[in-house]
Amino acid sequence: MLEIERNVHTFLGCDRDYASSDLVLFGAPFDSTTSFRPGTRFASAAMRNESFGIETYSPYQDRDLSEIAVFDGGDLELPFGAPDAALEQIERFTDGILTDGKIPCMIGGEHLVTLGAVRAAVRKYSDLHIIHFDAHADLRMDYLGVQLSHACVLRRCHELVGDGHIHQFGVRSGDGEEFAFAKAHTHMHRFNFQGLEETVERLQGAPVYFTLDLDVLDPSDFCGTGTPEAGGVHFAELLDAVRQVMGLKPVAMDINELSPHYDQSGASTALACKLLREIMLYRLS
Amino acid sequence: MLEIERNVHTFLGCDRDYASSDLVLFGAPFDSTTSFRPGTRFASAAMRNESFGIETYSPYQDRDLSEIAVFDGGDLELPFGAPDAALEQIERFTDGILTDGKIPCMIGGEHLVTLGAVRAAVRKYSDLHIIHFDAHADLRMDYLGVQLSHACVLRRCHELVGDGHIHQFGVRSGDGEEFAFAKAHTHMHRFNFQGLEETVERLQGAPVYFTLDLDVLDPSDFCGTGTPEAGGVHFAELLDAVRQVMGLKPVAMDINELSPHYDQSGASTALACKLLREIMLYRLS
Amino acid sequence: MLEIERNVHTFLGCDRDYASSDLVLFGAPFDSTTSFRPGTRFASAAMRNESFGIETYSPYQDRDLSEIAVFDGGDLELPFGAPDAALEQIERFTDGILTDGKIPCMIGGEHLVTLGAVRAAVRKYSDLHIIHFDAHADLRMDYLGVQLSHACVLRRCHELVGDGHIHQFGVRSGDGEEFAFAKAHTHMHRFNFQGLEETVERLQGAPVYFTLDLDVLDPSDFCGTGTPEAGGVHFAELLDAVRQVMGLKPVAMDINELSPHYDQSGASTALACKLLREIMLYRLS
Amino acid sequence: MLEIERNVHTFLGCDRDYASSDLVLFGAPFDSTTSFRPGTRFASAAMRNESFGIETYSPYQDRDLSEIAVFDGGDLELPFGAPDAALEQIERFTDGILTDGKIPCMIGGEHLVTLGAVRAAVRKYSDLHIIHFDAHADLRMDYLGVQLSHACVLRRCHELVGDGHIHQFGVRSGDGEEFAFAKAHTHMHRFNFQGLEETVERLQGAPVYFTLDLDVLDPSDFCGTGTPEAGGVHFAELLDAVRQVMGLKPVAMDINELSPHYDQSGASTALACKLLREIMLYRLS
Amino acid sequence: MLEIERNVHTFLGCDRDYASSDLVLFGAPFDSTTSFRPGTRFASAAMRNESFGIETYSPYQDRDLSEIAVFDGGDLELPFGAPDAALEQIERFTDGILTDGKIPCMIGGEHLVTLGAVRAAVRKYSDLHIIHFDAHADLRMDYLGVQLSHACVLRRCHELVGDGHIHQFGVRSGDGEEFAFAKAHTHMHRFNFQGLEETVERLQGAPVYFTLDLDVLDPSDFCGTGTPEAGGVHFAELLDAVRQVMGLKPVAMDINELSPHYDQSGASTALACKLLREIMLYRLS
Amino acid sequence: MLEIERNVHTFLGCDRDYASSDLVLFGAPFDSTTSFRPGTRFASAAMRNESFGIETYSPYQDRDLSEIAVFDGGDLELPFGAPDAALEQIERFTDGILTDGKIPCMIGGEHLVTLGAVRAAVRKYSDLHIIHFDAHADLRMDYLGVQLSHACVLRRCHELVGDGHIHQFGVRSGDGEEFAFAKAHTHMHRFNFQGLEETVERLQGAPVYFTLDLDVLDPSDFCGTGTPEAGGVHFAELLDAVRQVMGLKPVAMDINELSPHYDQSGASTALACKLLREIMLYRLS
Repeated sequence: MLEIERNVHTFLGCDRDYASSDLVLFGAPFDSTTSFRPGTRFASAAMRNESFGIETYSPYQDRDLSEIAVFDGGDLELPFGAPDAALEQIERFTDGILTDGKIPCMIGGEHLVTLGAVRAAVRKYSDLHIIHFDAHADLRMDYLGVQLSHACVLRRCHELVGDGHIHQFGVRSGDGEEFAFAKAHTHMHRFNFQGLEETVERLQGAPVYFTLDLDVLDPSDFCGTGTPEAGGVHFAELLDAVRQVMGLKPVAMDINELSPHYDQSGASTALACKLLREIMLYRLS
Repeated sequence: MLEIERNVHTFLGCDRDYASSDLVLFGAPFDSTTSFRPGTRFASAAMRNESFGIETYSPYQDRDLSEIAVFDGGDLELPFGAPDAALEQIERFTDGILTDGKIPCMIGGEHLVTLGAVRAAVRKYSDLHIIHFDAHADLRMDYLGVQLSHACVLRRCHELVGDGHIHQFGVRSGDGEEFAFAKAHTHMHRFNFQGLEETVERLQGAPVYFTLDLDVLDPSDFCGTGTPEAGGVHFAELLDAVRQVMGLKPVAMDINELSPHYDQSGASTALACKLLREIMLYRLS
Repeated sequence: MLEIERNVHTFLGCDRDYASSDLVLFGAPFDSTTSFRPGTRFASAAMRNESFGIETYSPYQDRDLSEIAVFDGGDLELPFGAPDAALEQIERFTDGILTDGKIPCMIGGEHLVTLGAVRAAVRKYSDLHIIHFDAHADLRMDYLGVQLSHACVLRRCHELVGDGHIHQFGVRSGDGEEFAFAKAHTHMHRFNFQGLEETVERLQGAPVYFTLDLDVLDPSDFCGTGTPEAGGVHFAELLDAVRQVMGLKPVAMDINELSPHYDQSGASTALACKLLREIMLYRLS
Repeated sequence: MLEIERNVHTFLGCDRDYASSDLVLFGAPFDSTTSFRPGTRFASAAMRNESFGIETYSPYQDRDLSEIAVFDGGDLELPFGAPDAALEQIERFTDGILTDGKIPCMIGGEHLVTLGAVRAAVRKYSDLHIIHFDAHADLRMDYLGVQLSHACVLRRCHELVGDGHIHQFGVRSGDGEEFAFAKAHTHMHRFNFQGLEETVERLQGAPVYFTLDLDVLDPSDFCGTGTPEAGGVHFAELLDAVRQVMGLKPVAMDINELSPHYDQSGASTALACKLLREIMLYRLS
Repeated sequence: MLEIERNVHTFLGCDRDYASSDLVLFGAPFDSTTSFRPGTRFASAAMRNESFGIETYSPYQDRDLSEIAVFDGGDLELPFGAPDAALEQIERFTDGILTDGKIPCMIGGEHLVTLGAVRAAVRKYSDLHIIHFDAHADLRMDYLGVQLSHACVLRRCHELVGDGHIHQFGVRSGDGEEFAFAKAHTHMHRFNFQGLEETVERLQGAPVYFTLDLDVLDPSDFCGTGTPEAGGVHFAELLDAVRQVMGLKPVAMDINELSPHYDQSGASTALACKLLREIMLYRLS
Repeated sequence: MLEIERNVHTFLGCDRDYASSDLVLFGAPFDSTTSFRPGTRFASAAMRNESFGIETYSPYQDRDLSEIAVFDGGDLELPFGAPDAALEQIERFTDGILTDGKIPCMIGGEHLVTLGAVRAAVRKYSDLHIIHFDAHADLRMDYLGVQLSHACVLRRCHELVGDGHIHQFGVRSGDGEEFAFAKAHTHMHRFNFQGLEETVERLQGAPVYFTLDLDVLDPSDFCGTGTPEAGGVHFAELLDAVRQVMGLKPVAMDINELSPHYDQSGASTALACKLLREIMLYRLS
């Protein structure tokens, strides 16, 4: 009898079992509140597929994914059109990972999914800080009357972590009220990563949640997203910023808003895969 | 001073004012519960844009859109991720049109939007019958725990109109329970339009809501939809079936599930435009 | 010294020299008057490129392109935005071919290019008949004030050949006036090829120009065109109709309105190539 | 500790373990000899991904994938550019499945992969017959000097099974020699399925290998393939033909030449998924 | 009776009425002389549609579109294939706006449309200067014998405004003669914006027409154009240059050569929308 | 009799005859060993087609293609799936060009094609140096057991030219062993062109083969390639590096790994065309 197993499909080099892993990857393929162009639901599957176009070895760090222990749990099966239920499921799953002493790393999905993970993280770490890279402020009170919307996700997080605990970088879009709110309640650094060094210094030792909305990148580097916003940061800058944040050893993190179909060249998905490789290698160094 | 107005943008030849119109077009760009591939939110805008590639004249009917009175009210602004609120808004708007003695004709959006319009119609016409063209049964009790889902829309409608009031044609996909439910509670005609003639005969004089899920078409004719399902009907058959249904003078109707971006040739959108022209001309003949 | 020539690029199997050829292929890459979606300028180049995906052998006729003598002269260099000059250039080139006793076969471009070739043909054959396959009537007097427009091309031809000399098949779109004009002045057969047999019988011995607007095909077979119009004929029907027309040994012909980029699958271009192979084999049998 | 497994990814409803399965799915993502447009290497992964857009239940057969036992072993890792090695690997794997008394069902890849599976099958079943649905004859002696080419695969198979053991249907393309070869050595039925009933009757009880090149379908139904060839069969015809062939209970089979990226609508992949569902249900009924 | 109006569709936040507006947006969807890849005719419609993906608020200027008065008159209906007539229509419309004391802001279309607007502007402002951002010199005497061509538009403008009144920036493509002509007759600054500061200083108080061919941008930022030319400027540079030019309070302006379909990610259209927002805010500050 | 020739199709401005040319362009459309996403086979044809979107004049060098003598021999007809035979054919053709005292300039295809040309060059120039721009090291001993693979091409070249004769720039991907091998046997400059000046200085007078894998560019500039790798160099840097290398007057060269279909905007192909123009002008200055 042949000894073969059912087809296992994980992100490149992330094939450890759960028990022995330090970091747990999982997908949150949800985009029901996306108001402009949907499609982030396809991100985690696309990243698993396309990860085989990159290498496990990083010439930036001279390290290899084979040297770290990552488990890929696949995608949560989230109910479209029901943000409440979806967030609850994300929260529960993240909570389990944290309880088991591992680092959850969620692949969105739209940015709203962050709220589920932050809810779990803030329960464990009451003094949680959030480092937020994004083109958009995401600080609206509501969007067309809806409070559980991608456009409000950091506002909802603010309700959990409070003033001065959200550190935003790269923001270059929002309405006037969001920028006003930021002035009063968050640390917002517009357009780029100026101030990141100081932030990282200040947060030494604090529990940090890192949420990376990939549209912080300039659309020339990353057009595979629903709301491309000119004037963003470039890959090298982002890689360096990520390196700094990972030095803080975040307790949980996510990478979101890749909408792979909008970049038919595949370059956006490839970039996201490469970035995730670097993030995991930095985090577990 | 130049006398020019702000840019008005309607479906081809549908530029009457509201008061003098017999039929009211409007878009319901909502696809938050779409479980597979989203994008129907773009349908109504695409149809308005692309309608200028067809003619106002129908050689099938030897009539012209200029001979009938249609108002295009544009798109409702529906909150993504909040099906309850979206349906309520659709219901209220449809109700207003019906109250004014006009025929609402909604362009979806995913199929769930039908529920809002049916709620309004059934309030006015307690004995409402629904004629439903679709590749999918849409009769699930819930989908991943969600009851307000595109996959459940006819089941929700059944709760409003009861046994024997739903007449389904062209269905070729669903789970076993849906087909079992249909056997007991609806008139389901699988694969094609066999039985339509009898249905139309039987429903003479009854108030009819007509809901046309365009994926009833074979993907060769219409691939611009989220869940293309081989083995469908062809344009000529559908045109003839639509002609028969319009003979019943439906009190309200919708056309849904065009997801224009999946057909980059534009043929699906063009077909939908042509079909809508024929529907309106038949309805107001 | 290597003996190699500059890169020659012809339609598959059409590599004879001019003098020894019976039929002369050439491209007329012009689409300046296209009113909806441009792109037919790319058709002739795309057909040459993609022709290598089909075979030189026809199982329909059990004959091979190697058995006939066809020259491919490449594309005319037509000035965009100057229909007058472009048509003159087409007319002059076609005239030369006809004078040399060969059969011109032009690949459009938009349908307007037909006018240039017809002008040349009618000068040589005063009793010229035109067989016209098309989804659109193309019989407008003018289009937005312009008389040299694709939408008017058969009307312009009518001014050259007169009543009863235009035989239209497959037409399913136009404005009311065009259909009225057709009733009075042309032989129009709507929707399909009914009546073609009689037409062919009647035209035995007459000089015939054959113009094939590929959008006569249903968009399911051929979506690579600027104005896809549902309800057309299918490949097998068209192939049979073409066979009948070729029995008349047309003195000149064209095939137009392929807009290759709108069908990213390449199936439309492949179909056009196959059809052209069959046309040439039938014509020179 | 959470009890979760690494991400398993199989074709819809094919999640049995190997030992308890009757049929074994596997992918052979190889397209190195494709001479026109490559891309079939992506077929098996695309089909797994997109299979979740269809249902496990078949209204054609009133049966469900949950009622049969299918194992999905994932994809072989075949070396690009080395057809010899790739075929050997396919042969070895197929041989193992046959030895274990199960039915191999391979998802290509280009058509050449069939040769590996046929080699294994003919070793076990010396009187093997091959039923071959295809637009192309695939009977060349060599292609640009290469004998292990997709264009020669049935010729190579003929060398294994001999005269009268290959039954070809739907063929509408090839060079003159291939059609001549077919006349002398295979049972070729051009253009459609005429003669299939007799073939099936004649082959009752014989061991049959079924190879389905999906380009036998008309490009209107299936444009997601490297060499779309107009004039093919339609889905309903193919489904019926497949049903007949499955009545013979083939000992091994494959489905090949889906090149998913050429059909950006996804309809071709969806059709292939649906067809595979029906094939498996018919085979194990 | 419901009180609803026909669907008004304007660029984001530009919904004032004509009389009360300071700036008048309108589209000139014309691309008949485009010699390479057409499609700019779709730009103005695409920009209106996609403008809803950006915000009305500018974090660069801390101002909002709601603070300024802009009217969007929709698109002119220009006759394809008739550049003379099209230009005349543009000229007449622009003239009306200027006469009413407002600032015309035209969205092309190919670059030729600029000529119509410049004709109107030069009639009102005899000493008109033109600031021209472009990858291409556009200074040919004729193109394939045609003088009214996109490739000649600045040469035609030169005939109207004379030596020393055209200020070109970012030019990196053209034939040798164009660069020679520029040396003698215009102020050409190749590759980037060096010299802009001095130009702006020098033109203080002069009437200025600003024409922005978006292909001045590097294709990495803006690939949605017919002739992408590597080596261009980046968004931040262009934004700064635009800011400087707007300080001169141009009397009329245009933004052209977006061909939205060539950038399927939508990033080019989004960038054009954002840029237009900034231009209008700077102009009316 | 008209005097017209069969359609000649060369890269823009490269229409000299062979005997009088200094440089010989030819295509090597082969991608059978491509392990991730195929399609480079389309590069040379796409570049010929799209070259007409650029100018013959270079504003960077103030020179014109009309001033140099280049012959375009079209594409070799290489057998897919047979790397041995393909490389032999490339080697023979390159050898002929070198023997005739001309400079071969090959357009790939995948990077493996370089091996054929290097084999010919090293036979004539025993002390050959290779300058290699690439995102990938291409130094594997084998790839899935295959030694003639794109991933091994520089390793195969190393077997021909020996230690210290390969100069790599821009490399940012590979496995750990490749980077280790490079340390011991080649001059590898990671990420960018640092060290190029010194390399060029050192190689004055030596025979140089220049191989340019276009994926050395950042995907923002060039996404039309099978394996886009973030973090690359930009056009201006590459142009300057190419200028330096051309100062060495390479005896042979190639440009490879454009996969045009992955960049539907055409910007990658346009960039490759422009770069090739500059390379040829620099080389023959």
